Amino acid sequence: MRCEIIAVGSELLTPSRLDTNSLYLTDRLNELGIAVRVKAVVGDDQADLAAVFSAALDRADLIVLTGGLGPTSDDLTRETVSQVLGRPLAESAQIVAALERRFAARGLRMPAINRKQALVPGGARVLDNPNGTAPGLWIDHEHRVVVLLPGPPRELKPIVETFVLPTLSTLTGGARLYRKMLKIAGRPESMVEEVTEPVYSKWADESPPIVTTILAAPGQVELHLVMVAVDGSAAEARLTAAASALETVLEGDVFSTDGRTLEEVVGDLLRESRLSVAVAESCTGGLVVSKLTDVPGSSNYVERGIVAYSNRAKVEMLDVPEHLIATYGAVSESVAAAMAEGVRTRAKTGVGMGITGIAGPGGGSPEKPVGTVAIAVSVGEETSTRTFRFPGSRDMVKSQAAQAALDLVRRRLLAIR
Amino acid sequence: MRCEIIAVGSELLTPSRLDTNSLYLTDRLNELGIAVRVKAVVGDDQADLAAVFSAALDRADLIVLTGGLGPTSDDLTRETVSQVLGRPLAESAQIVAALERRFAARGLRMPAINRKQALVPGGARVLDNPNGTAPGLWIDHEHRVVVLLPGPPRELKPIVETFVLPTLSTLTGGARLYRKMLKIAGRPESMVEEVTEPVYSKWADESPPIVTTILAAPGQVELHLVMVAVDGSAAEARLTAAASALETVLEGDVFSTDGRTLEEVVGDLLRESRLSVAVAESCTGGLVVSKLTDVPGSSNYVERGIVAYSNRAKVEMLDVPEHLIATYGAVSESVAAAMAEGVRTRAKTGVGMGITGIAGPGGGSPEKPVGTVAIAVSVGEETSTRTFRFPGSRDMVKSQAAQAALDLVRRRLLAIR
Repeated sequence: MRCEIIAVGSELLTPSRLDTNSLYLTDRLNELGIAVRVKAVVGDDQADLAAVFSAALDRADLIVLTGGLGPTSDDLTRETVSQVLGRPLAESAQIVAALERRFAARGLRMPAINRKQALVPGGARVLDNPNGTAPGLWIDHEHRVVVLLPGPPRELKPIVETFVLPTLSTLTGGARLYRKMLKIAGRPESMVEEVTEPVYSKWADESPPIVTTILAAPGQVELHLVMVAVDGSAAEARLTAAASALETVLEGDVFSTDGRTLEEVVGDLLRESRLSVAVAESCTGGLVVSKLTDVPGSSNYVERGIVAYSNRAKVEMLDVPEHLIATYGAVSESVAAAMAEGVRTRAKTGVGMGITGIAGPGGGSPEKPVGTVAIAVSVGEETSTRTFRFPGSRDMVKSQAAQAALDLVRRRLLAIR
Repeated sequence: MRCEIIAVGSELLTPSRLDTNSLYLTDRLNELGIAVRVKAVVGDDQADLAAVFSAALDRADLIVLTGGLGPTSDDLTRETVSQVLGRPLAESAQIVAALERRFAARGLRMPAINRKQALVPGGARVLDNPNGTAPGLWIDHEHRVVVLLPGPPRELKPIVETFVLPTLSTLTGGARLYRKMLKIAGRPESMVEEVTEPVYSKWADESPPIVTTILAAPGQVELHLVMVAVDGSAAEARLTAAASALETVLEGDVFSTDGRTLEEVVGDLLRESRLSVAVAESCTGGLVVSKLTDVPGSSNYVERGIVAYSNRAKVEMLDVPEHLIATYGAVSESVAAAMAEGVRTRAKTGVGMGITGIAGPGGGSPEKPVGTVAIAVSVGEETSTRTFRFPGSRDMVKSQAAQAALDLVRRRLLAIR
């Protein structure tokens, strides 16, 4: 079953408002195995709405329209749907009675304009709205289903839960959507694609198919696997096997298959290994320790963080030998290693991290351009170091450096496990 | 000029993702008097995208497509637009060269799949993308304009600002939108409304009207003033006078009328006062120093940051007397003051900041519930302290505490100026 959602209302076309009903609708429809293929937002304009609705009717089995069911003259959804489907409006005695009861219960008479809300396209079923004056409408039309819902979420949701979903589930026959997400660090998007595409492309032709999508964020790539199936345990088993196959070709670069963030994964590894961590940062300016402490309970393993922006701070607080800075420069693997070891020794932690680099926009040089970052991780007897060259603006360099540093700790902790 | 926006990407049809690029695009297009009439979201499906794009082409003068320009096989925007417009794709030597330079700069070879990003529909102009591999494309087609933009906001926005808007403004002419924004700290939204509404409400009836909107973010309230006018200098003069009137009733709580963030304002005040700063944080976990160092050039005044999560770290690194922690607790104004003075003394800076609190979800008690945060600022001879009780989740408490700490520094620096 393929679905399109149309949100109606000029306020949804302003720079400060989004159609959030469609997120809720997508979530609930996906659970029934109904995929949303297109979403549209249209203003209070009859010609635009008629065009968008007609196009959806040509493509979809289920069209859900939200909003534009109010009593005022700019509410046009009922009228437009009636006209496009060729089903003339007629007044519903059931709705008039419900409206009159609603106003009477508040000691008010029904304003004349509300009578418009009792108009119903021929053949429509009225879906009672306990929280407002605009009822929902369900229209079976030439092997398609058209559903009209009021825009306010507290009116829309009860109608969906009590009427729309139960009726749709009788039409779909138990199929549901299942998903799995792999999060990857240390490998750029195109290099993830290069090794995974030969693996996942064949799943698209199996029955039922697994659909794979790649998404990139600073310092992180995500692979989303989605399938629609009736048999839930078989679906979960196939997705788990698919995730394993991708993990194999991505070697150690997959850090999460259960939704956890990188800082949560590192936190769990630290907890398992019974190690605490101390962080010495320069160019990331506190972002690494701020991410680590975003995790509830991180006070159990984050001992301290030092942001040593100046060379004096690096020497005084982290015991970085001045001759290292003089010889190799503040941005060097030698200094990163000294920072990681210095903070670890002072803090008496199991893990020490050192990050030094040039976030930009100033401070670059031909040998060390903006984006150059040296990272060191000290665990056990060994301090490992790496130098990166990250592209992008100051905040991009900070984000990528923080992710890379957390990822290096993850790899070291896995290696000693 | 009527515009439609089409966002491409299956991830935008999941229950957890929204197309937010269209808000930014609407905002900037509205400023040129261009109305957005329809917005659509389409998955990575060539047939769906072709249908939605063709329909938009029938109705609109300007069609902006975002996303689907990546190197992977599910990126189909270029191919689909080429096919619908009947403009075959050809490889652009300019783009191939730029891609190769981009990868070479990071010491990487260009993966073969990236070559796809150099394909361009016939007659398209290439819009350089300094922050990514996918260039934008501008196509003049039968009295219509079709613009293709990469999906990531940090890639899309620079292309819009430097190329798309200037070119569109030559096509539109006439009235423009003018705005002014006041940023406010230390006063909740409802109390901002209480004192400003009597001032700004009358501007809505003037000609042309000034429209005022209030927006709240953690630790910050914004007042947006907007007017549409042909005469730019008259508009700017009215908005400046309006901003002054609001600043008067908001007393010292307006920290910015020129778009600067709180950390930029604090940075500028530190620079003017020729003072450096050192930060000692507990519950904010590095967020304060990370915000301060988000500002380019902050290495000139940020000397160091200490994240002292454990009591031992507070004693060892900040010289907080153990008896203070024993007597008043780690979350207390006495300890915050000792942290601010300790970090300032060790770092030999003009300003010291101390932040200690309970970010949650655990660690609260009846006298000191989750959200309790003590903040101290040490400048000159005086250390001032304040205790806050912030509502919300762990990250909300961290954000509000960081804003409050920066705002206290701002007020102290203004007072000694």
